[in-house]
Amino acid sequence: MSQQQDILRDAMRRLNLTRDAFSERLGVRRRALDTWLLPADSGESRAMPEMVGKFVAEILQREALPASGADARPLGQRIAAEGRPHLLSVAQFNRDSLEDLFQVADVMQPIARRQKVSRVLEGAVLGSLFFEASTRTRVSFGAAFCRLGGTVCDTTGFTFSSMAKGESIYDTSRVMSGYVDALVVRHPEQGSVAEFARATNIPVINAGDGPGEHPSQAILDLYTIQREFSRMGKLVDGTHVAMVGDLKYGRTVHSLIRLLALYRGLKFTLIAPPSLEMPAYLVDLVARNGHVVEQTPSLEEGLRGADVVYATRIQKERFAGEEIEGYTPEFQVCKALVDRVCKPDTILMHPLPRDGRPGANDLSIDLNHDPRLAIFRQTDNGIPVRMALFAVLMGVEHQVARSMRDAGWRSPAHIGPDDAEFDGLD
Amino acid sequence: MSQQQDILRDAMRRLNLTRDAFSERLGVRRRALDTWLLPADSGESRAMPEMVGKFVAEILQREALPASGADARPLGQRIAAEGRPHLLSVAQFNRDSLEDLFQVADVMQPIARRQKVSRVLEGAVLGSLFFEASTRTRVSFGAAFCRLGGTVCDTTGFTFSSMAKGESIYDTSRVMSGYVDALVVRHPEQGSVAEFARATNIPVINAGDGPGEHPSQAILDLYTIQREFSRMGKLVDGTHVAMVGDLKYGRTVHSLIRLLALYRGLKFTLIAPPSLEMPAYLVDLVARNGHVVEQTPSLEEGLRGADVVYATRIQKERFAGEEIEGYTPEFQVCKALVDRVCKPDTILMHPLPRDGRPGANDLSIDLNHDPRLAIFRQTDNGIPVRMALFAVLMGVEHQVARSMRDAGWRSPAHIGPDDAEFDGLD
Amino acid sequence: MSQQQDILRDAMRRLNLTRDAFSERLGVRRRALDTWLLPADSGESRAMPEMVGKFVAEILQREALPASGADARPLGQRIAAEGRPHLLSVAQFNRDSLEDLFQVADVMQPIARRQKVSRVLEGAVLGSLFFEASTRTRVSFGAAFCRLGGTVCDTTGFTFSSMAKGESIYDTSRVMSGYVDALVVRHPEQGSVAEFARATNIPVINAGDGPGEHPSQAILDLYTIQREFSRMGKLVDGTHVAMVGDLKYGRTVHSLIRLLALYRGLKFTLIAPPSLEMPAYLVDLVARNGHVVEQTPSLEEGLRGADVVYATRIQKERFAGEEIEGYTPEFQVCKALVDRVCKPDTILMHPLPRDGRPGANDLSIDLNHDPRLAIFRQTDNGIPVRMALFAVLMGVEHQVARSMRDAGWRSPAHIGPDDAEFDGLD
Repeated sequence: MSQQQDILRDAMRRLNLTRDAFSERLGVRRRALDTWLLPADSGESRAMPEMVGKFVAEILQREALPASGADARPLGQRIAAEGRPHLLSVAQFNRDSLEDLFQVADVMQPIARRQKVSRVLEGAVLGSLFFEASTRTRVSFGAAFCRLGGTVCDTTGFTFSSMAKGESIYDTSRVMSGYVDALVVRHPEQGSVAEFARATNIPVINAGDGPGEHPSQAILDLYTIQREFSRMGKLVDGTHVAMVGDLKYGRTVHSLIRLLALYRGLKFTLIAPPSLEMPAYLVDLVARNGHVVEQTPSLEEGLRGADVVYATRIQKERFAGEEIEGYTPEFQVCKALVDRVCKPDTILMHPLPRDGRPGANDLSIDLNHDPRLAIFRQTDNGIPVRMALFAVLMGVEHQVARSMRDAGWRSPAHIGPDDAEFDGLD
Repeated sequence: MSQQQDILRDAMRRLNLTRDAFSERLGVRRRALDTWLLPADSGESRAMPEMVGKFVAEILQREALPASGADARPLGQRIAAEGRPHLLSVAQFNRDSLEDLFQVADVMQPIARRQKVSRVLEGAVLGSLFFEASTRTRVSFGAAFCRLGGTVCDTTGFTFSSMAKGESIYDTSRVMSGYVDALVVRHPEQGSVAEFARATNIPVINAGDGPGEHPSQAILDLYTIQREFSRMGKLVDGTHVAMVGDLKYGRTVHSLIRLLALYRGLKFTLIAPPSLEMPAYLVDLVARNGHVVEQTPSLEEGLRGADVVYATRIQKERFAGEEIEGYTPEFQVCKALVDRVCKPDTILMHPLPRDGRPGANDLSIDLNHDPRLAIFRQTDNGIPVRMALFAVLMGVEHQVARSMRDAGWRSPAHIGPDDAEFDGLD
Repeated sequence: MSQQQDILRDAMRRLNLTRDAFSERLGVRRRALDTWLLPADSGESRAMPEMVGKFVAEILQREALPASGADARPLGQRIAAEGRPHLLSVAQFNRDSLEDLFQVADVMQPIARRQKVSRVLEGAVLGSLFFEASTRTRVSFGAAFCRLGGTVCDTTGFTFSSMAKGESIYDTSRVMSGYVDALVVRHPEQGSVAEFARATNIPVINAGDGPGEHPSQAILDLYTIQREFSRMGKLVDGTHVAMVGDLKYGRTVHSLIRLLALYRGLKFTLIAPPSLEMPAYLVDLVARNGHVVEQTPSLEEGLRGADVVYATRIQKERFAGEEIEGYTPEFQVCKALVDRVCKPDTILMHPLPRDGRPGANDLSIDLNHDPRLAIFRQTDNGIPVRMALFAVLMGVEHQVARSMRDAGWRSPAHIGPDDAEFDGLD
């Protein structure tokens, strides 16, 4: 973390200050701070005066919580599951450990953006066990591991021959653990990934256990909110998040709302048709933590004033032959609606895939050219977040920065032709 | 491109001279030229006198087109698709850019033949999206990427869960592009790979879009013809190519004939049963370019005098319940027929797979020991050609030569026990 | 092989001496020898006095067979199949070449245990062709290849499109051989992998050809017995092995008994229900080699006194609609039975997968905490054994030791929470 923008970003996070408040605190102009926060290879980036660096360090020492709160153990130990280096649930995180993870993800960004290459995991092998197919998630984890220098052995399919022959999860897990250095497991049954994890001491990451959890998705969602807000000079504390769609079965929104509840003074608007509302225990948990929760079946009303709109798809397979009362095509989040009720700096998020067919009750594709659409910045952020998870669970997070060298091939400045100007910069 | 055989081969290509004509032009014996063209590690290879090198350079300067014609832009830009580094169609090439690509493929040969190792793409990740299975093509692209130092994330299968849920090609492409550095896509629908390409700025290679194109196959086919002819001292200009089999639906022959039409004065004999003839628009295009085109349903008549026989398989699945008039077992290209009507230096090609069962209307397996059978030299050439495509699209083609080091493991001199003496040498 | 424990272990193997006998031969205390045999990084390890090293070398020179018997050719040549570097059958090994392979596997252990990293195969590509699925075997080979620095291109599935279209094994093998540097092939038909091997000069490893062989499994089984015995100070010669279960169709036990028969004076107890007995030709072969063979349908009787219990699963799919006389639930090898009739140093092995469901006629999961259960030490040993096979067939076995560097990431001391104290040490 030697780059000045990483130091400054981390300082703002630990002091919980916006850019405006931070520049005031330092006694510098906001404009100067902005140029120091640009990537080093940007034409408008400026080197921060050495004295500023010393001032920031002193402020941190006096005023901020240490990076890891009162807890000086390595991050991998602080988030451990029953003493082992697994990631099974978002419940393993508190606000401090989450922000420390984000700091590691920030360090990964130059690699994720193909400017740098690292080989810290050279020689390590990832076992990717997908008992149900999920191309997106599998490739995201696989690419993240490869970008740290490791290699991947994939397995996809519902009926692995061995388990069909009566092999226990215990056996499968322990055998695979002798072959590889970390496991990413997706399985249709809730709790099954935890069962995998209990049979091994190597890191196991839950990539979705049916109705259970998919923690890395919620973590990358929150990381995205933080980065978007950092660009805009906003804070997560006190923000207004609208969640839309299937809030009953969507494990993504369940995990995300639990992470957001670690922050202070948020307002949640939960917009779902009557039969698909957020489970009461989660609403209670969020309210108990001091946040405001509003529930409404009206999309137009619910979106008004939100800083973040988190839309989800109705998974029709959940409702074979069941009527979903009140869930009509007007439930679609489209450009006309967003222009009407959202703000110029609202960000639109989605766990993907979204249903892009005409008339789908989902985030509409007519928003593809709108820079508020953050869905691909979300998926892009999956790489640095998953790199950070691997690095922390395998204990190499402090070796990454000094292991980087320039990438040898040519990469586009913007990945997608419709990417916003600021994409890939920050 | 520091090796003398690469320099000489390139000079002959740019001057469009056979070995005989080139040795005459230089005033050296053909035999001497042959020894300079042998691989450096061959026992009979000789170093070319320094003066010859200077003479060749002067001739090139005065007489030849520059390597890139009048166009001095990098090859990747010259073959770009709508300004982006994709390979979607053979129409992206002209003769100059094609020959420049072949020159890059020549540089790759020592790596493809396992004598050298390169890591120019170390840290890069290839996404391989096969919406229909094709083991051969997938592994060929994957191995080519690995031999440049990269790693591969594979996906095979017709129904990726996301796309089955209504996700657009736009979303799939943009999401995957945030994970990987290049995409190879096979898809059953014509035009779908171009749709993938429009949604991203990272390189996309079309590995077959149904009845559309499979450009890398046609390119490796032509590269094979060039290399075979180079060994024999023949030129592509003026040659006689016989194409056999299903010329109506075979996208391979469609793309190949378009590439061959970039050369001068060829004669094409198109041999197909009545209902499976080459589409008229392609026959017209070739004729307009000044080539001679003959069509015949008679195998015996059509093969006579051909320098290249390009056989294809009848894809029976295209004709469920339909009679194919005139397509009888005598349509098989077997050793007896080849010995009767072909020349000692005719080369026999095929895009594979071929139907090796007795009585199949395909290139017969009784030719397996005949050195004219070039089908495995064709597939072997898939590696250097695909390496060249990746290198050019990712802008590392000029880093490869100086990145090479010796391979550490032992490889066989000939890959197959039935390989011709000259296989793997050239 | 510079580490003293490798030198000492190899000496005991070549002299065929237990630790007791070896320490007596050297005139040192058994306890001293034990400390020299501990891994260098163990707290209780001691450096062996230089004089002891010289003494051992002299004894070996005078008394032992040379490492490679009378045969000084490289191991890859000694085990070649029809002159080519394939592994198709355990019949390619004799006792000398087997023990030389084990010595290479010992060298691989620090890499297999994630303490060291090697890149000797950097740039090499493995083609993994599984015409029937076998996650475990595929990942074991793949991870082994990756741990030597190579990369893997996988293919799984019964109907590869090309072979379904009539492509011969000859074509498939030769084409793939032009793409990759070694092939691992599993195929449901006996003899098919040998057919693959005949079409190529690159290494082909048989990963199971239906009822035929799966040689690497038998080799890792025997390697496991040797290592377990080495820890206990026992020799393979003269040991008592009980084989349990489906001895008629289990290719694993067929290959293992043939390897064990290369040793001297063993006693085999073959325990199978009447219709599933070991084929007579194998019983005869073992008996002819001077071993004692007993057959019994009684589990309780058969296990008594065994040093090794090798249990196998009844593959129920082999008996659709057939009654298996005498094969009742009492056939299960469970903790109560093992405690009653086995010894404290008996080792329990199984080729896996085992049927872990209640009442299954298989090795019971109630033994999971019993250190005699060696099944995961077996699968762990699959990595160094398969690394050794790749290294020997590709001619890099002598480059591995000097290529090692420390692994950069953190690995658990014990892979599984139920691993025995001595697991991962030895």
